[in-house]
Amino acid sequence: MGVVRRVYQSYGYEPLETPAFENIDTLLGKYGEEGNKLIFKILRRGEHEASGDADLALRYDLTVPLARVVAQYQNDLPKYFKRYQIQPVWRADRPARGRFREFYQCDVDAIGSTSPLVEVEQLAAVSDVLTALGFQDFVIDLNHRLILRSLLKNAGIPPALQGEALVALDKIDKIGRDGVAKELAERGIPPDAGQRLLHWIGAAWEGDWLQWLEQQFADVDTDERAAFENVREILRLAQDTSAGDKVRFEPSLARGLSYYTGAIMEIAVPDLAGSLGGGGRYDNLIGMFLGREVPACGFSLGLERIIVVMTERRMFPEAVAGSAVDVMVTVWNEASRADAVALARDLRQAGVRVELYPDADKLGKQFKYASSRGVPVVAIVGDDERARGEVSLKDLRTGEQRTVLRASAPQAVATALKGTNG
Amino acid sequence: MGVVRRVYQSYGYEPLETPAFENIDTLLGKYGEEGNKLIFKILRRGEHEASGDADLALRYDLTVPLARVVAQYQNDLPKYFKRYQIQPVWRADRPARGRFREFYQCDVDAIGSTSPLVEVEQLAAVSDVLTALGFQDFVIDLNHRLILRSLLKNAGIPPALQGEALVALDKIDKIGRDGVAKELAERGIPPDAGQRLLHWIGAAWEGDWLQWLEQQFADVDTDERAAFENVREILRLAQDTSAGDKVRFEPSLARGLSYYTGAIMEIAVPDLAGSLGGGGRYDNLIGMFLGREVPACGFSLGLERIIVVMTERRMFPEAVAGSAVDVMVTVWNEASRADAVALARDLRQAGVRVELYPDADKLGKQFKYASSRGVPVVAIVGDDERARGEVSLKDLRTGEQRTVLRASAPQAVATALKGTNG
Repeated sequence: MGVVRRVYQSYGYEPLETPAFENIDTLLGKYGEEGNKLIFKILRRGEHEASGDADLALRYDLTVPLARVVAQYQNDLPKYFKRYQIQPVWRADRPARGRFREFYQCDVDAIGSTSPLVEVEQLAAVSDVLTALGFQDFVIDLNHRLILRSLLKNAGIPPALQGEALVALDKIDKIGRDGVAKELAERGIPPDAGQRLLHWIGAAWEGDWLQWLEQQFADVDTDERAAFENVREILRLAQDTSAGDKVRFEPSLARGLSYYTGAIMEIAVPDLAGSLGGGGRYDNLIGMFLGREVPACGFSLGLERIIVVMTERRMFPEAVAGSAVDVMVTVWNEASRADAVALARDLRQAGVRVELYPDADKLGKQFKYASSRGVPVVAIVGDDERARGEVSLKDLRTGEQRTVLRASAPQAVATALKGTNG
Repeated sequence: MGVVRRVYQSYGYEPLETPAFENIDTLLGKYGEEGNKLIFKILRRGEHEASGDADLALRYDLTVPLARVVAQYQNDLPKYFKRYQIQPVWRADRPARGRFREFYQCDVDAIGSTSPLVEVEQLAAVSDVLTALGFQDFVIDLNHRLILRSLLKNAGIPPALQGEALVALDKIDKIGRDGVAKELAERGIPPDAGQRLLHWIGAAWEGDWLQWLEQQFADVDTDERAAFENVREILRLAQDTSAGDKVRFEPSLARGLSYYTGAIMEIAVPDLAGSLGGGGRYDNLIGMFLGREVPACGFSLGLERIIVVMTERRMFPEAVAGSAVDVMVTVWNEASRADAVALARDLRQAGVRVELYPDADKLGKQFKYASSRGVPVVAIVGDDERARGEVSLKDLRTGEQRTVLRASAPQAVATALKGTNG
């Protein structure tokens, strides 16, 4: 989260948090029919609790709450509002690998501009995050909703079946080309249309796929022409960023959510069937609350999925798994507890992380506990040490024990820890 | 949050997060009757959504979820389990100043020891947090559930009315001594018992209140005697910590939650009717899940209340309210967008926070926008600058503009910002 936050801030995104609750009406109808079913609804308090009436619901993503906030505070926000948001969302979904009912999304969104620089900056920011976390082999697929429209139209898929075709297409990562072909047929897509579709999206094409596609299509209207140009522009401008060698045009990318209107983007890594994150342009969503169109574009990273892949690949640095404390201060006997408290205080003031053993157990037992917890150094103030104003420090990793003046204990601990904590 | 986290870690508490949901049965019956009503309940998915059946509920505090976790993972946890947790909780409450339906609690809890060192460490940690945030005038009230019991018993309040008396007593901060006297009478407490109670808790006593009270009471059983000794011990051991001059015995402190069994603690500041946080020992709660007693003690800080007081007292450093970016990179014209992207990239790589203006608007408009956003420095790559491999930097605070080599732009920005950011 620290890495995500730092990178997003370097791009000028400001932090935002929104409440876990939204009014139920704010969420319904924004995520498609399947999404509606996955929204967690909260019982209205009081008499309605018996009737099962629900008035609130839990955040399903961070985009719709943002749109609600932008509509609500439109007069207080700058012309270009750029925010990042790292918060959990909830979906009444069947859990799977890296997929939970509660999970964190890390979103960046930019409101107020239709410029392709918005998409380029988000592609770059996301690439910076993944690169900083140690990912090298990710790819960001890029497509456009209107290129998809043009694709389906030119393949000869009747408008009424285009939604069905997209659902099938969206599964290509999971079920492959043959699976999609089968599912297209099952969903009533004419065989020749399905074949054209698969030909256009599937060719292991090495040249300029975008241009080739545009030339293949017989019927491309002005808006669709602009969409091709938009994707071309995003690819060109992204060259000068860390996303340059990561982003590629991928005409099969569909993205499930219904609110996208322009460019759509999704991150793929070889060892995860789903994506690490995705996003796109949604120029109409804020207008649903506000009554006038406001351009907007966002990108969302799925934290748990990133963690799943990083864990499986052992990408986390060793230090993350280290001991939570530097020193454990032992308690010699009941009478000396005040000394132990004071020593813990002095060490903490010097920046050392200290665990104070709570009970006056036998010292052997206290050492054993420290050892089982992986604590590197144990501090002892016995009667002798106390009389001489000293502290004994035992390094549990080496077994070495030495006695130092109490005043120099923090320094001695720091020295003992050097090399461990860097 | 950063301050809270740092201090808690220095005490050896480990971070923990729990899901927002708990099974509804985990929460019901833990917070008293009033608490039950304030739990937000979530509709069960599927067919039950129509029947109003609820199976899950939202966290009401961080203590019960911790107890559930400890019971569930008892075999994987160390003998002394110390965790901190900073997460929102939800209560279907009427909002008030610093009181919301969703709010953050910052909890420390220590499981596994009955030692008074546990309470002392928590008092010290909380004092360290508040001191680090800039608070000087807070007081931590300390009482014990069994001293309360002894107090009510010796005042002559019948067992059946002791709950009523506690509810009245709990309001002393809000309604004063006279208000409590009136409410005690209304709740059917015999006048002489009410008077004794108020005499014992209310005397502006300068000496050893604890000892005086113990001597006043005619009937003190062994457990109650131990409670007096426990509070005395906590006060004595806390002397050697930052809580030494903050914590005081306060026999009127009751704390609403029903699960406390021993010492109870609460932070008061003069300018807030409620408390900034509180806690106490709850040796039976984990046993409710586990079937055997496990000693435990915790302290919870209310983040929003702390923020309310800090805001009203203007305790936040200026920098917190500063600009989110260091530099805004302007866009000279459509053709030069790639240059702007590349410059933004280079500045970010040097650690500068950069906003890239998205549209090729007139430069005056871009400057005006930067100024309205409080951005200190604006970078321009016009045609001339581009031809010479240079960048113009304008300091919007001084109006000064200078041209530097593109390669030294990050350094020049850093110099311009020096004094602003530290």
